[in-house]
Amino acid sequence: MSETIVQNKRVLEAYESFAKHLKNFLDEQQFNHEEYTNFVNWADRLGKSGEIPLFLDDFIETYVLEAKYKGLPGTEPSLLGPYFVEGSPLLEKQPFIIPERPDEAGDKLVFYGNASSVNGQPLANTKVEWWQDDSDGLYSNFDSKAPDFNLRGHFYTDENGDFEVHARVPIPYQIPTSGPTGEFVRAAGYHAYRPAHIHMKLEHEGHETLITQVFFEGDEWLETDVAKGVRTSLLTKLEQVGDHKEASLNFVLRTL
Amino acid sequence: MSETIVQNKRVLEAYESFAKHLKNFLDEQQFNHEEYTNFVNWADRLGKSGEIPLFLDDFIETYVLEAKYKGLPGTEPSLLGPYFVEGSPLLEKQPFIIPERPDEAGDKLVFYGNASSVNGQPLANTKVEWWQDDSDGLYSNFDSKAPDFNLRGHFYTDENGDFEVHARVPIPYQIPTSGPTGEFVRAAGYHAYRPAHIHMKLEHEGHETLITQVFFEGDEWLETDVAKGVRTSLLTKLEQVGDHKEASLNFVLRTL
Repeated sequence: MSETIVQNKRVLEAYESFAKHLKNFLDEQQFNHEEYTNFVNWADRLGKSGEIPLFLDDFIETYVLEAKYKGLPGTEPSLLGPYFVEGSPLLEKQPFIIPERPDEAGDKLVFYGNASSVNGQPLANTKVEWWQDDSDGLYSNFDSKAPDFNLRGHFYTDENGDFEVHARVPIPYQIPTSGPTGEFVRAAGYHAYRPAHIHMKLEHEGHETLITQVFFEGDEWLETDVAKGVRTSLLTKLEQVGDHKEASLNFVLRTL
Repeated sequence: MSETIVQNKRVLEAYESFAKHLKNFLDEQQFNHEEYTNFVNWADRLGKSGEIPLFLDDFIETYVLEAKYKGLPGTEPSLLGPYFVEGSPLLEKQPFIIPERPDEAGDKLVFYGNASSVNGQPLANTKVEWWQDDSDGLYSNFDSKAPDFNLRGHFYTDENGDFEVHARVPIPYQIPTSGPTGEFVRAAGYHAYRPAHIHMKLEHEGHETLITQVFFEGDEWLETDVAKGVRTSLLTKLEQVGDHKEASLNFVLRTL
C-alpha cells in the first residue's frame, strides 16, 4: 500500500478488546445467518436514516458512563443525548430566565442549584448549560416548532457556586419511534418513554466537565427509562409553591 | 402507549446479552467522553455513507461464523461479504463456463469441486452459486464496469456431486478505503487487502446452506486478511496446467 498509515493505537486496542468481548457474546447467542443478515439490514437502515447518534445515545451511552463513574465521588453523569447544541444564549443576570415563547405552555419552574468541588470548595463562575423539552415533549433546534434555542441557555454560578433558574417543568417524552430505532424499541418490548428531565452541563477550570440530567421523584417512567439514564443521586422533589413549582439539586464536580 | 407492541423475544435476549458483554468491554477500556463522541460521529458517517454492511461483513461477520461453527464437522463457512447478489445466470452444462467479457483479463482457471454430506453421501443436484472479482479486483453489479452478472453464475452438481467450472483466477483486492471503513482500517494500522478468493454458496435439501470462500496457498495476504475470513480447510493449490491454472476443493455440508 503506497498510502501512509496513520495509526491510532487507541483505535486498534479498542477494536481488539471489542472483538474479544464480541466473541463471548456470540458464543453465548449463536446467531444463524438469517439473524445476522436481519441485523445487518436493520443497522444499514439505522445508519442511512441518520439515527445512529439517537440509537447509541439512548441504548449504549449509559453503559459507557456507568463503566467510567461507578463508585467515584461527585455527582454522577448521565447521557448527553442527541439534543445538545452549541451556541445557546448567554444569560447574564440571576435569576436566570430561560428563553421561552410568549405563550410557552407548561408549569413554571424555579430551580435552585449549587456547584461545588469534591474537595468541598464552592465553585464560583462555573459555566452551566441548560437544555430541556417543551410541554409537547419536543426540543428546539430539532423537532419543536419553537424558535431555535427556545428553552436553552447558559450562565455562570455566583461567588457561592449558586444559581437560580426560571424555566418550565419538563415532561416525559417518547424517543422517535417511526424509524429503525423505534423498530428496535418495539421488538425489544420496551416502551419509548424517558422520564421528565433537565439536561445540564457544568464546566469549571481544573475539574472534569459534568454532563448530567435532573429527574423528579414520582415520575412514572423512572424505573423503566428507555435510555436507562436515571441515577438516584440525580433525583429531586418537585414542590408546588404558590403559582409555580420549585426544585433544587447540588452538583459536585470531580477534580482533574 | 396506545401502539400495540410486537415483541420479538430473540431481539430482547440478544440486546440484553450484548449489553452485558458491552459492560465488560467498557469496564476494560474506560472511554472518556471525547472518545465516545468521536466514535458516535464516526459511526454516524459510516451509517450515512451506506458502509454499514461493508464494515460489518469485513470486521464482524467472521466472528459470528467462528462462534457458530468451530469444532463442527463439515466444510467451514466464511463470510458472505457485501458483494453477493441474487439473480445470477443459470449455467446448464458441464463444464460450467462462468460468463465473462470477450476480452476478460486474468489467468484462465479450471476448478474441480465436489459436494458431499457429513454422512458420507455425495450430494447430486446441489445448487452452487459462484461469484468472484475480476483482474482489476472489482465485482460486477458493484464497482466493476463489466456488465451485470459478469463472473457470476449458478449451476447444479452432477450425480456424483461433482462440478467443473471454467472461470478466471481471482486476485487479491483492497476493500474500499475512501470512506469511514477506510478511516477505521488506517486508524487500526491494518492494510486493506483480502487474499484472492472465490465465493461459493452451496444449497442442498436437508442440509445447512454453506456460504464459504476458496483461498489459494502462497497468497501473500492469507495471514493478514483484513476481513479475517481465511480458514485452513478452505485453502487449495493453484497449479499451472498447459495454458491455464487448475485448483480443486471438496465441500462437505452439514445435515439439518
